[in-house]
Amino acid sequence: MKRTIYAGNVSVEHVGENVTIKGWVQKIRNHGGVLFVDVRDREGVVQTVWPDFFNSIHADLLVAIKPEEVVEISGSVRRRPEESVNHQMKTGEVEILGSDIIRISSTLPLPFEISREIQVKESLRMKYRYLDLRRESLSKNIFFRSKISKLVRDFFHRNGFIEVETPLIVKYTPGGARNFLIPSRLFTGKFFALAESPQIYKQLLMIANFDKYFQLSKCFRDEDPRSDRQIEFTQIDVEMSFIDELEVMRLIEDLFYVLWKEILNIELVQPYKILTYHEAICRYGTDKPDLRFGLEIEDLTSIFQHSTFQYLREASFVGGIICRKASKISRKYLQGYDEFIKSQGGKGVKVFKLDEEEKDPEVFKVLKTKYYFQPGDLLLVMGGEKFHSLELLGLLRKNIIEVENIIPDKEFELVWVVDFPLFELNNEGNITSKHHPFTSPLVEDIPLFSTNPLMMRARSYDIVVNGVELGGGSIRIISRDIQQEVFKTLGLSDKDIEEKFGFLLKALSFGAPPHGGIALGFDRLVAILLGEESIREVIAFPKMTSTYDPLTDAPSEVEYQQLKNLHIKVEE
Amino acid sequence: MKRTIYAGNVSVEHVGENVTIKGWVQKIRNHGGVLFVDVRDREGVVQTVWPDFFNSIHADLLVAIKPEEVVEISGSVRRRPEESVNHQMKTGEVEILGSDIIRISSTLPLPFEISREIQVKESLRMKYRYLDLRRESLSKNIFFRSKISKLVRDFFHRNGFIEVETPLIVKYTPGGARNFLIPSRLFTGKFFALAESPQIYKQLLMIANFDKYFQLSKCFRDEDPRSDRQIEFTQIDVEMSFIDELEVMRLIEDLFYVLWKEILNIELVQPYKILTYHEAICRYGTDKPDLRFGLEIEDLTSIFQHSTFQYLREASFVGGIICRKASKISRKYLQGYDEFIKSQGGKGVKVFKLDEEEKDPEVFKVLKTKYYFQPGDLLLVMGGEKFHSLELLGLLRKNIIEVENIIPDKEFELVWVVDFPLFELNNEGNITSKHHPFTSPLVEDIPLFSTNPLMMRARSYDIVVNGVELGGGSIRIISRDIQQEVFKTLGLSDKDIEEKFGFLLKALSFGAPPHGGIALGFDRLVAILLGEESIREVIAFPKMTSTYDPLTDAPSEVEYQQLKNLHIKVEE
Repeated sequence: MKRTIYAGNVSVEHVGENVTIKGWVQKIRNHGGVLFVDVRDREGVVQTVWPDFFNSIHADLLVAIKPEEVVEISGSVRRRPEESVNHQMKTGEVEILGSDIIRISSTLPLPFEISREIQVKESLRMKYRYLDLRRESLSKNIFFRSKISKLVRDFFHRNGFIEVETPLIVKYTPGGARNFLIPSRLFTGKFFALAESPQIYKQLLMIANFDKYFQLSKCFRDEDPRSDRQIEFTQIDVEMSFIDELEVMRLIEDLFYVLWKEILNIELVQPYKILTYHEAICRYGTDKPDLRFGLEIEDLTSIFQHSTFQYLREASFVGGIICRKASKISRKYLQGYDEFIKSQGGKGVKVFKLDEEEKDPEVFKVLKTKYYFQPGDLLLVMGGEKFHSLELLGLLRKNIIEVENIIPDKEFELVWVVDFPLFELNNEGNITSKHHPFTSPLVEDIPLFSTNPLMMRARSYDIVVNGVELGGGSIRIISRDIQQEVFKTLGLSDKDIEEKFGFLLKALSFGAPPHGGIALGFDRLVAILLGEESIREVIAFPKMTSTYDPLTDAPSEVEYQQLKNLHIKVEE
Repeated sequence: MKRTIYAGNVSVEHVGENVTIKGWVQKIRNHGGVLFVDVRDREGVVQTVWPDFFNSIHADLLVAIKPEEVVEISGSVRRRPEESVNHQMKTGEVEILGSDIIRISSTLPLPFEISREIQVKESLRMKYRYLDLRRESLSKNIFFRSKISKLVRDFFHRNGFIEVETPLIVKYTPGGARNFLIPSRLFTGKFFALAESPQIYKQLLMIANFDKYFQLSKCFRDEDPRSDRQIEFTQIDVEMSFIDELEVMRLIEDLFYVLWKEILNIELVQPYKILTYHEAICRYGTDKPDLRFGLEIEDLTSIFQHSTFQYLREASFVGGIICRKASKISRKYLQGYDEFIKSQGGKGVKVFKLDEEEKDPEVFKVLKTKYYFQPGDLLLVMGGEKFHSLELLGLLRKNIIEVENIIPDKEFELVWVVDFPLFELNNEGNITSKHHPFTSPLVEDIPLFSTNPLMMRARSYDIVVNGVELGGGSIRIISRDIQQEVFKTLGLSDKDIEEKFGFLLKALSFGAPPHGGIALGFDRLVAILLGEESIREVIAFPKMTSTYDPLTDAPSEVEYQQLKNLHIKVEE
């Protein structure tokens, strides 16, 4: 028989109809000779009833039936008796009086339960992902992901954007330590790389006059194992010509308006706040500030010049966070803050409470008058090099929120962080790009190329949601000269530049329009919309943080002959 | 100034308005002191006019302006004088009386012209793809591709399908000679592979109860250089549970109805013809028959048992094609058919015309009575082993169509070819899967596993459009035993089976629903809809058939240190 309806869609409007459903046995109950078999399919669960089943022609099958077997059931839909109506269940007003049942597939004993949402070790869930995906909590996420991707695409198409697929097998750029390599079979000793992003291609599309491009693109990065990254991920990639920063930012705000409205029924207020990188660091100690909370960092350097504490009096910078009505002011908790900062590589934190006024009378005077410091308030103070202290205070702020269990006023706070440094020093002390080398500097900072490139600011913008960076973008360089200047500042020789980026410099020479764009982490966006902590909860088949895949047991060893065809061999 | 309108969208409804456009200089003409500067952007071209330009404040710029420079122009829209209206041009009724012009970007001399559709060598077009993409012929294709992908996605969403992204970095399956390999950095000596298709993942999604899945998925295959394949390509991938062959076929017919209607305004007639593989081979000598033409192959074996030609009389099979009113019946052309077949590895072809009746009187008698053979008709005949002869006749049929320049009645003929062999012999004489090893055999052929597996037929279906295979699919195996039987028939040991497909066999043991699906080549589909011969004309950044990329000069060499990080080295 053909399926006539999804099990999960049977409702009172079908009462009296004969239906055929196909799906998985969810639950079986025997109530005094009446057998109830709940059947689950994609749309939900429906109850089938088999009165006096033991004497029916299907007795053999009904007696033996097990959860997670696949069955086909025909029968007539009827209303449940009033007392049996289940209001928790979509189909709870009806049931199917079974007339026929066929077992389509049987099952071995399951590694974990499907029908109840019990906790299961993640590696086990991943090994049996096809079973994990049967569980409502996960499958609902994947369904929503499909819906969100549709909303995203519809939004961009509606706004005149063209989706263009850019290559995933691309040129290897020397020094790309996070590139996956692909040995070429046809070109001995040569390699392709997997695309880290469509960055250069989307810029070429602007030079090619596409004007408004977007793509839900796969990107690949050979990440070190971190809590919540995947080696392949999906990016909402956007680029526009003849625009400025604000137009890109407004576009993304419009997109988020649609997504938050459709998925969460929340109407986000536009425009979002804009913080410069410098402000974000000074006020929140991070370029990814969580604005759902106050607890801003105060620059207390001048106040502490009158402190009785020598270390603070003499520090080049003193910063502090005032925590109002701190509920956890026990010695143990205060020590906890100090230990936390030490665990983060700081020298510890000094704590001021109003009942300790005598410790530092001058400072407390100002605290009371200028900061309205009151009983129950806490001041946590740190002194030292300014930016390092700010960073530690930023971490302390997050720690306070957690320890004090401070509840945010709003569920979502979105903020733009702009004017990032164009360059920064990496761990080896070399200049690198803060974002990527195609980011345009602020016009007024161009003279700093020759004097102080580390002070240059970028025409860049990151979007931060609840302290999580969702993506970022910039206005790009279209001057061949400035692009070359950036490469030189990064320490590339003329030969390097030509080899790595010659084609881009050439492209910039043939009439390049002003352009800019943004890239958003799609996995992260979906996770935020669905309230999931980990992106693995919104990916159908994720890998573990080690990159290992318990489902298929990848990566694996490869025969010698196959490697030989690719002109490589393993070096232990 | 901000752009107020796309150049290509200026029309009579804007007459009198001041507008600002931004784009590329397309053409410059000086008509007796009046300068015409055509400006192109994504939407088209508009003419700007600069009367007495030599005395204007913009004289310096206007004198020096060059094609493909990027400019910003402001001015007022006016109607062209009646005699200057250009009906070939979208904006041909109007022009912009220029008041201000800024040069945004200049250009070096171009490698080829953009504004006229001249022939350019493909490798040069690919090296400067960003310029090639400015040309209308190519950019229009990429725009249409975006539109088609939207239509495809909308169709599947409308029909209750969920788009799920499956991994591209996957397990390497031993023996996968067409797999791209990715060395693992974290697991010394181990490798991932790039996904050839989402086949197994989509089956797992069915086992996971997703019921209706689709994806526009990237696939990777390390193809040998062939005329029209790419190492990465896009696939419309579909899978459904609890369905049969016809439901998949009807779904795809419904999809094509939408695409042909929306893109070409053609209403395809449903359902399509269905040919078995055996019929297709016997009637057209190929499993990808082009049904826009007749010229079917006739089995003439019994007739030629009375032939005067010994070689045909004694052949185990004689097949022929009757070409009615053949216009090219000169000796030279006939010899051409013979040579063509020889060039394809055949022994040549015998040609019969009515004025040569005396050569083989018995045969001609039947030809005239049974086949209404008439003056001007040609019979091309071949004898030998049946299936080899049919294959050659299939090639001959294509050759005849080309040589005789036969025009099809219909622009598109779509046909399903079904019941393919489950297995075939490869060049080394080993049994391999005709499609893939997850294809279900016909139920009535299951007993042949032990006796004659090469005679087994598959529950498979290919969709063929005008002689081009657009894709194919099948009903999948859900019985663990049958799946194991297939693997064994393919010569895999128990250990191989466990290592390669253990996880799939396991998945089949936990309640697998009946399921099947299809995969369509999206690049090819777009090419067919746009009337392009080569898929490279519908891909923004294709690679050459050698896999080489002239744009970025990939693949390339990699530093020793980088290879060392990946635990591999190059072996010459």
